[in-house]
Amino acid sequence: MQKDLKEEARQIFKAGVRAVDPNEAVKRFLTLEGNTLLLGEQELDLEDFEGIWAIGAGKASAAMAQAVEEVLEDRLSGGLVIVKYDHLAPLEKIRLLEAGHPTPDENGWRATQELVNLVEKLGRQDLVLFLLSGGGSALLPMPVEGITLAEKMAATNLLLKSGASIQEMNTVRKHLSQVKGGQLARLAHPATLISLILSDVVGDPLDVIASGPTVGDPTTYKECQEVLDRYALKDTLPASVKSHLEEGIEGKVPETPKPDEPIFSRNLSILVGTNMQALKAAAKQAEKLGYTSLILSSLIEGDTTEAARFHTALAKEIVMSGHPVVRPACLISGGETTVVVRGKGKGGRNQEFALAAALDLEGLKGVCLLCGGTDGTDGPTDAAGAVVDGDTVARALAKGLNPREFLAANNSYHFFQHLDDLLITGPTNTNVMDLRVVLVK
Amino acid sequence: MQKDLKEEARQIFKAGVRAVDPNEAVKRFLTLEGNTLLLGEQELDLEDFEGIWAIGAGKASAAMAQAVEEVLEDRLSGGLVIVKYDHLAPLEKIRLLEAGHPTPDENGWRATQELVNLVEKLGRQDLVLFLLSGGGSALLPMPVEGITLAEKMAATNLLLKSGASIQEMNTVRKHLSQVKGGQLARLAHPATLISLILSDVVGDPLDVIASGPTVGDPTTYKECQEVLDRYALKDTLPASVKSHLEEGIEGKVPETPKPDEPIFSRNLSILVGTNMQALKAAAKQAEKLGYTSLILSSLIEGDTTEAARFHTALAKEIVMSGHPVVRPACLISGGETTVVVRGKGKGGRNQEFALAAALDLEGLKGVCLLCGGTDGTDGPTDAAGAVVDGDTVARALAKGLNPREFLAANNSYHFFQHLDDLLITGPTNTNVMDLRVVLVK
Repeated sequence: MQKDLKEEARQIFKAGVRAVDPNEAVKRFLTLEGNTLLLGEQELDLEDFEGIWAIGAGKASAAMAQAVEEVLEDRLSGGLVIVKYDHLAPLEKIRLLEAGHPTPDENGWRATQELVNLVEKLGRQDLVLFLLSGGGSALLPMPVEGITLAEKMAATNLLLKSGASIQEMNTVRKHLSQVKGGQLARLAHPATLISLILSDVVGDPLDVIASGPTVGDPTTYKECQEVLDRYALKDTLPASVKSHLEEGIEGKVPETPKPDEPIFSRNLSILVGTNMQALKAAAKQAEKLGYTSLILSSLIEGDTTEAARFHTALAKEIVMSGHPVVRPACLISGGETTVVVRGKGKGGRNQEFALAAALDLEGLKGVCLLCGGTDGTDGPTDAAGAVVDGDTVARALAKGLNPREFLAANNSYHFFQHLDDLLITGPTNTNVMDLRVVLVK
Repeated sequence: MQKDLKEEARQIFKAGVRAVDPNEAVKRFLTLEGNTLLLGEQELDLEDFEGIWAIGAGKASAAMAQAVEEVLEDRLSGGLVIVKYDHLAPLEKIRLLEAGHPTPDENGWRATQELVNLVEKLGRQDLVLFLLSGGGSALLPMPVEGITLAEKMAATNLLLKSGASIQEMNTVRKHLSQVKGGQLARLAHPATLISLILSDVVGDPLDVIASGPTVGDPTTYKECQEVLDRYALKDTLPASVKSHLEEGIEGKVPETPKPDEPIFSRNLSILVGTNMQALKAAAKQAEKLGYTSLILSSLIEGDTTEAARFHTALAKEIVMSGHPVVRPACLISGGETTVVVRGKGKGGRNQEFALAAALDLEGLKGVCLLCGGTDGTDGPTDAAGAVVDGDTVARALAKGLNPREFLAANNSYHFFQHLDDLLITGPTNTNVMDLRVVLVK
């Protein structure tokens, strides 16, 4: 029975990932009926436009571009999408340029320049589809004039080390860029700009995903100054960065466009793929398999071991009392947890989540937990995650493997490799963070 | 509206605590119909017994004893209950003896001796009701002969510092005691022994609550040896402790009674008050107030801030997507989290949970979270916990209070005192750990 549970958990995970396949995700929100382009609940009459262009950046954006080509066929005028090296898809009209990720490089800078050149030429008669996915920020590196890519990265690293929050980092980064924080929308204006977004950020905040190139930016140069003051960074920042921010604070360079500016009035952003979509598809598959499913939250963050403990506390309660749902039950959650690496082993947050859960679930019958990254790559491994049940610890001990030692060494990959309990999907070409499945029969 | 939410959260908490009032809890499982004593689903014919005795130990055990007196009236022969200093209740037939808690003392030792003297005299014609509640372990100190109370406590402290788990500590402690690990049941044999238990341990394991004086002990002297070996404690333990354990390992002193021994065959243990009972009563009250309630788990342990984050992740998801339940929703959980004290402030795990949650919920409308200890005492404070909502952080900042600084200083009590958001119930005379209420309207 345990083996079947694991197999069912894998099926449920796969159904979740399938739902956020970039090609399918785009096509779910983009269809053509005669001359009418249906965009979710919006409609656009293509006769209003002379040119229709697809631009974009992100690891999944080649696959998204392919979907756009398949939907629009010869209506499409052309376009340019920037992807991570080797993250390609066969395209006919849309150019693909490869660049560095997660560390931005000169190719990324040149590609972003080409993308800017393209949109700057467009006018009111043009429609632009902007295809954004995870990695889009690193693939669109374009510091303001006078700041080199190296200097911008140095500033980012300083912020990172200072203890600044992600929000604070983004506030500064947007003000060091020519395209982030709604500035790409300003460059594309007065063309009509529709963003199709595959979200890899918890909570799907449009102004945060890839630092929101097409979304109004509520943050200001004044707030940048507050961040620099708070972390006493003024004297350590590269001189070019410091002087640009000072000019901004003095009003000598224009602010990023704010959310209420008219350039955004005809624009639209559509989340074509989100963690919640994957969770819902997983829940649907679980119901098909006879489970009562309960989606807990797509917003699970924080320490991996602690998050695992919460999931197992719910699983055990189902066994004990039938709360929060009665058996056969399937709990589903998403988001992205963090690992503080203390050991020298090989693993990822999902495999470590599963290992921590295995310790909590030791000896329990009829319970199974799967944790996997929807991109198919968990940490620097070829696994997406792992699957565990109440026998996992006993099976490990019988093979001479001490689960606590593997956990302490952050060596979850080798632990599950020995047990043949890795979840291996190969690269999925999508990324909406993680998906966790808990089955209680 | 926010204010109403907080008031409703307080009502829901109070309903939860009311359900585990020791007096009511006992009476829910103990009723007299003519000559028949109804014990949950069991029945006892009182004509089979000549004497009916009530013994016990724990912070709530005076109130439990009072309930027994009220139910049995003149059928009761007498008894003896050991309570923490000043944790009294008016009793007529059952003697109350006060003793030290959480540190055991000589009064506790003497009281335990009297309790043992009482049960040793009993025979097949006697019925004993054993009233156990939180604190029962410290209030029943009776080391085996040859070991002083101070030596037993020294051994316990060594185990604690060594990093031994609670399970490992209990294994050793049971084997250093004359009453724990089922030994009180052996002393009371052949009387019929019914334990009525108010549980303050996550998961309500009968052999762990107060080290299970009336419950068969699956652990052995051999396992004690393994614990000592594992943490290299043999040379640091008091000589008396070491020599007793060695005698036990060599079979020179009897083992604790094992679960399958005949002495337990006519005994019964009833959990009259548990965390889950409080959660269910809270959920019922929430439903009365119009909320769809969802009991997450009574088993929530781990780091307080991380646990708070999990609860707020679910609250935010309810706002965003209606998962795991649709609004108006009430999430309920129990258990007991831990705090790593780093600062010098005043607070408790529940107040700290609420403070961490307030930071996560900043700016959110229609959401409220309450966290409180069912005993009415959170850490070394006169508050049970605290109540927060999306305005808490803004209200604090307006008063010049920085929530993050208070959290870092473990100073949640003073934070909520300034905001008048403490949950103050006074001592409730019960303890089934913590109760958390999340309202989303």
